Amino acid sequence: MNNFNYYSPTEFVFGKGRAAEAGYFVKKYGGSKVLIHYGGGSAVRSGLIDTVKKSLDDAGVQFCELGGVKPNPRDTLVYRGIDMCRAEKVDFILAVGGGSVIDSSKAIAIGVPYDGNFWDMYCGKPIEKALPVATVLTIAAAGSEGSGDSVITKEDGMLKRAAGSDLLRPRFSIMDPSLTETLPSYQTACGATDIMAHVFERYFTNTTEVEITDRLCEAVLLTMVKETPRVIADPNNYDARANIMWAGTVAHKNLCGVGREQDWNSHEIEHELSGLYDVAHGAGLAVIMPAWMEYVYRHNVLRFCQMATRVFGCQMNFEDPEATALEGIHRFRKFLRSIGMPINFAELGAREEDIPTLVSKFEIGDGKTGGFMQLDAHDVTEIYKLAANASL
Amino acid sequence: MNNFNYYSPTEFVFGKGRAAEAGYFVKKYGGSKVLIHYGGGSAVRSGLIDTVKKSLDDAGVQFCELGGVKPNPRDTLVYRGIDMCRAEKVDFILAVGGGSVIDSSKAIAIGVPYDGNFWDMYCGKPIEKALPVATVLTIAAAGSEGSGDSVITKEDGMLKRAAGSDLLRPRFSIMDPSLTETLPSYQTACGATDIMAHVFERYFTNTTEVEITDRLCEAVLLTMVKETPRVIADPNNYDARANIMWAGTVAHKNLCGVGREQDWNSHEIEHELSGLYDVAHGAGLAVIMPAWMEYVYRHNVLRFCQMATRVFGCQMNFEDPEATALEGIHRFRKFLRSIGMPINFAELGAREEDIPTLVSKFEIGDGKTGGFMQLDAHDVTEIYKLAANASL
Repeated sequence: MNNFNYYSPTEFVFGKGRAAEAGYFVKKYGGSKVLIHYGGGSAVRSGLIDTVKKSLDDAGVQFCELGGVKPNPRDTLVYRGIDMCRAEKVDFILAVGGGSVIDSSKAIAIGVPYDGNFWDMYCGKPIEKALPVATVLTIAAAGSEGSGDSVITKEDGMLKRAAGSDLLRPRFSIMDPSLTETLPSYQTACGATDIMAHVFERYFTNTTEVEITDRLCEAVLLTMVKETPRVIADPNNYDARANIMWAGTVAHKNLCGVGREQDWNSHEIEHELSGLYDVAHGAGLAVIMPAWMEYVYRHNVLRFCQMATRVFGCQMNFEDPEATALEGIHRFRKFLRSIGMPINFAELGAREEDIPTLVSKFEIGDGKTGGFMQLDAHDVTEIYKLAANASL
Repeated sequence: MNNFNYYSPTEFVFGKGRAAEAGYFVKKYGGSKVLIHYGGGSAVRSGLIDTVKKSLDDAGVQFCELGGVKPNPRDTLVYRGIDMCRAEKVDFILAVGGGSVIDSSKAIAIGVPYDGNFWDMYCGKPIEKALPVATVLTIAAAGSEGSGDSVITKEDGMLKRAAGSDLLRPRFSIMDPSLTETLPSYQTACGATDIMAHVFERYFTNTTEVEITDRLCEAVLLTMVKETPRVIADPNNYDARANIMWAGTVAHKNLCGVGREQDWNSHEIEHELSGLYDVAHGAGLAVIMPAWMEYVYRHNVLRFCQMATRVFGCQMNFEDPEATALEGIHRFRKFLRSIGMPINFAELGAREEDIPTLVSKFEIGDGKTGGFMQLDAHDVTEIYKLAANASL
């Protein structure tokens, strides 16, 4: 096991009806003037924004608001948010939404107390100060409600960049699973795929002897395999929603990653797909991740057998371990199809002839990337090809 | 799934050689004058206290020290610690040791800024203020390195009482598994038993549909079942020590308990045993917990089958589920014996004829207690009897 630090100071406020406590918690964590930041109209239409406003009013906390966050959140709205916060003397950002809204909120939180352009921090400058951020989560997927990370897209050139710091970890995150019941099942499934991918990126590692982290990863994966089909079959299954929502947080708080190297190639390879076609990140992962597995499994066949047997219930074939490894990958892809995810380029709306473009945008140059199996541009091309033509 | 709050703000600093960072972290969390609190001579003899002092010196942090914490830490030393902190103007308590040292440190932290007797807070008075506490952990067992709880024994009458508050959660906890390599294997096994018990107390619940928490519990238990015998066989197996140490923290941070009722009867029943005979808490649990399981399993046979199959690798007997449940309990007891734990009163050094005394000390009166199966004095008597006469 490698040395590590683990720090997750967010207070998670979980369960039905908890959004009405937003005001209490903003006050507890020192906010007196809040920016409520959100996305499209659904948070307004559902009455959630009103619930939050009433709760802030009741707690005697002032607020202003800024909606309009899009998936793959843009720098342009961040600039508007920063200006608004300065003009209104905001001292606390409350994100009401999913990963995009939270990431946009974190960017605003960085920008307000910073003299220069907040984008500096998305180009590697260390974050020294940030307004406190908190969230009211409306979709189980990105894990941003517990993380110190933020991904923003520069609209000019659609450049996607990340920034991270413990200063960006939400002070509290209100997580009411019933808020996710109105999501279209496609979005629910995209979120579930993202959650599983966050675990797999950490599960495939060359660091040995981290049984506890392995088992925690498998705990999340087994939960997703059980609960996701139940939610797809019945969107109002509160308990299944609750298990998925909490699993999504556990998946990305890094409890599933400590003590070892992580991979993250599938995320990198997927980013180019969702960049070029503006498809949902989770859907892109459904196409890429099993293809990545098919390409790399020979790097450690028994590790894939572990996934196959412990997560997907395969019987170990001791005479032919490769068959078990491949059976596990096959079951993962079958699972993704069963919850309505695309499994190849055609189903995703991507085109095989774009592969050279995708590879050229992937900033790998002549180097190699990844923590499990190091990949070069040729390897990435092959993975895109496997993804393009996958079938069951 | 029930609503819950989850809050675990401690920064965990995990791995080989990390004690040398104590000074850096004390400074990071605002300490300028530290009380180093520890137990017997082993932390001194091993050179650990010197490492910590040097690290504080290097960081320019002043300190004083107070050793002598005993297992089942006493109020008498807490009073001395409070006086010392006031006289020396200490603003930060650093516990170097196991659960007893950490609990004693938390009591001192409560007492210093409080005008009255710190014991008030162990009689139910809410904790409003406390000095910051941090730990350098030397044994994997109690989980106090991540919790807001403290248990102190009033020497006059040997009364054991608990206090708890988020204010008592350590700011940071340094966890170096190699520090546990010199522990006698009996103490290692007691710690492992305590860790498993912390999970079982949360695993047996009447709240349904909390798959993620079940799976996280099983992740810890599976890790303990794998790693504990390796450490008993080879005390210098660093990786196995590391897995156990982190599992011990995960077991008691309440990640294994959120979203549902918990039981805690085995801990209550054990407390009277270790109170009367001054035996190790973990050893008492090894005797009590399987007996409790034998007594209550019919309350939910399939839940015990889940433990038997998922944790102890039993084959489910679909024609006779009770047989599977009992096989699981039997394997747990066999496991405890295999790591050197006592499994009955004789092996523990307890006497069956004391059972009425034990039951009379147990503050249950005419009522019932416990979150899984409610027990009265008669039930507790029967459990002590099962524990007294257990065999393999």
